[in-house]
Amino acid sequence: MAPSIEEKAEMASACNGIGGPPYRVTVVGSGNWGSVAAKLIASNTVKLPVFHDEVRMWVFEETLPNGEKLSKAINQTNENVKYLSGIKLGKNVIADPDLENAVKEANMLVFVTPHQFVAGICKRLVGKIKPNTEAISLIKGMEVKTEGPCMISKLITDMLGINCCVLMGANIANEIAVEKFSEATIGYRQDKEVAQRWAQLFCTPYFLVSAVQDVEGVELCGTLKNVVAIAAGLVDGMDMGNNTKAAVMRIGLREMRALSKLLFSSVKDSTFFESCGVADLITTCLGGRNRRVAEAFARNGGKRSFDDLEAELLQGQKLQGVSTAKEVYEILSHRGWQSMFPLFTTVHEICIRQLPPSAIVEYKEQITNATVVEGVAPYC
Amino acid sequence: MAPSIEEKAEMASACNGIGGPPYRVTVVGSGNWGSVAAKLIASNTVKLPVFHDEVRMWVFEETLPNGEKLSKAINQTNENVKYLSGIKLGKNVIADPDLENAVKEANMLVFVTPHQFVAGICKRLVGKIKPNTEAISLIKGMEVKTEGPCMISKLITDMLGINCCVLMGANIANEIAVEKFSEATIGYRQDKEVAQRWAQLFCTPYFLVSAVQDVEGVELCGTLKNVVAIAAGLVDGMDMGNNTKAAVMRIGLREMRALSKLLFSSVKDSTFFESCGVADLITTCLGGRNRRVAEAFARNGGKRSFDDLEAELLQGQKLQGVSTAKEVYEILSHRGWQSMFPLFTTVHEICIRQLPPSAIVEYKEQITNATVVEGVAPYC
Repeated sequence: MAPSIEEKAEMASACNGIGGPPYRVTVVGSGNWGSVAAKLIASNTVKLPVFHDEVRMWVFEETLPNGEKLSKAINQTNENVKYLSGIKLGKNVIADPDLENAVKEANMLVFVTPHQFVAGICKRLVGKIKPNTEAISLIKGMEVKTEGPCMISKLITDMLGINCCVLMGANIANEIAVEKFSEATIGYRQDKEVAQRWAQLFCTPYFLVSAVQDVEGVELCGTLKNVVAIAAGLVDGMDMGNNTKAAVMRIGLREMRALSKLLFSSVKDSTFFESCGVADLITTCLGGRNRRVAEAFARNGGKRSFDDLEAELLQGQKLQGVSTAKEVYEILSHRGWQSMFPLFTTVHEICIRQLPPSAIVEYKEQITNATVVEGVAPYC
Repeated sequence: MAPSIEEKAEMASACNGIGGPPYRVTVVGSGNWGSVAAKLIASNTVKLPVFHDEVRMWVFEETLPNGEKLSKAINQTNENVKYLSGIKLGKNVIADPDLENAVKEANMLVFVTPHQFVAGICKRLVGKIKPNTEAISLIKGMEVKTEGPCMISKLITDMLGINCCVLMGANIANEIAVEKFSEATIGYRQDKEVAQRWAQLFCTPYFLVSAVQDVEGVELCGTLKNVVAIAAGLVDGMDMGNNTKAAVMRIGLREMRALSKLLFSSVKDSTFFESCGVADLITTCLGGRNRRVAEAFARNGGKRSFDDLEAELLQGQKLQGVSTAKEVYEILSHRGWQSMFPLFTTVHEICIRQLPPSAIVEYKEQITNATVVEGVAPYC
């Protein structure tokens, strides 16, 4: 049985010397993954004394076909009727369409929006958040500037002046929503205690979380794997079989690792063995939306554009792999690294229909070059 | 156009100072993978001057339903009508049911038989092979003795007194047979030139081979992945979804790496990023026979034994995962390591029907212990 507010206050003061639970969480975002994150978090805040029961969830307000507001519908039904229907979020999840109001009492902010909206949201939050607030980003994507990539966690830290961890992993939202066993990885910069608090907040018996001191490595895994998923989807769409798919996924993982280490010397090889690395890559290449749309693209022989297929297949969800492939391509061409990253390069050139889908396995010469990145010379 | 024997002899003497191609290859084994290996090799020996055109393939003689001998049928049709029907092996592949005769002129031996037959075959070959013969093992499995595992490559070296490399990778034989793009990894001990020669022999435009100096790491990947494939098949049989499957595959890869490094301190982390590691694991967990039988086992709620299902589903092919799981379990219990390897331990206990299939994701406590192997403490 969950403890009462009084019991929690007591436990909290016992465990941290002040009255009332010290940590209050707001989830900034309410899409498919954001709603599942709110559900995970809410199941822990009612149990753990250090957290306030209530979890605020900022909702980008929409009007539903029946004329009702999305936030109102969520609070009435305790379900995100548009992005996660049929799943109860927990009575302690409160949808709030007012961003400023949603964050004003929180000192733990969970960012989980499409990556292209983060800068705008942070701009609106400047000066509106409590001191000593901690953030975590569940957002896969990056902002690319001429000088190189700017990770979402860095963008949040730079714009709001707060520390930001990341959480990534093999996390197909709809499967976690129905409590299938899975794992995730938290990347933290310095403070291991903060990482542990975030892990407490997300961990459930069916969702195991571990932490590594490698923010950029974890975050780049979550971003770059979507490009590999496009490649895997193309292989599926051409019925090339499991060997080819596994080979393309492996080459993709190698390029993820090589590029991450070239961009940030602090990135650790071991991070790619965590859930955020190999497991997320596998999940995304088996069942993710990038894979699905890329498969359809290949089955259409590249005749219909990704935008076209995205609109048809994803009911308003965003496809990140194509834009990430473009951003990665900009980094590679800016630094003259294309020949070292044949898979990343080829995916973008297929996406913009400069190359046919079949080109995904037609870069032997480039593979040879890329392999040099790891100092293993192939013999073909 | 392939060069004539005379041209090859000339090229060979030009390139190594002696008359005639210096290397003659025999494939010891003629099952599904052995036949595909013979096809790959034969396509190169006719092209490369350092190799004799002819590739001998030792056939464990069988009588076909029509009363004909398998070796005779292979030589008449240029197909392995029993284990790889419909695929031409190359006119320069000669099936030979006489083991001694098949190896007597060879100085490159390719071992590709079920692992339980290797010791018996080597015993028959003692004193029958040429001096300075080099061997490579494509065999996935190991002999377990009380003092620990004896890898197939070591068994061959010990019994025949010859150097032995290994070749492993994401290699579903039937997909390579139809020339789908894939990769493989050669593990070598000291001599990089020997590794390069083996790579030349196997490489084709659709089969890329690279080499790493880590025989035990490469060989253990090929052995241990079959245990993980059983786990993945169980997840499939219980329709647990892609997150769970990816998590189980990741935990399996972690245990493969951790056990390999505990058994052989020379094993390199980077080996697990090669085709023999992550790619072979993915292929095997997506489409391999171990996965398939384990899925059937779980769908039957563990009521029918693996032996039973193997006989029904595999038409005489052997299932390695179950016996390897047993061998691994013996190593773990001999050294008291079970709690560090929850997935390996659980797979065996499910195989012998001591635990139900659902136990494959019910070892959270053990995961915590196992995670310590990598020094990453989870927070659940």
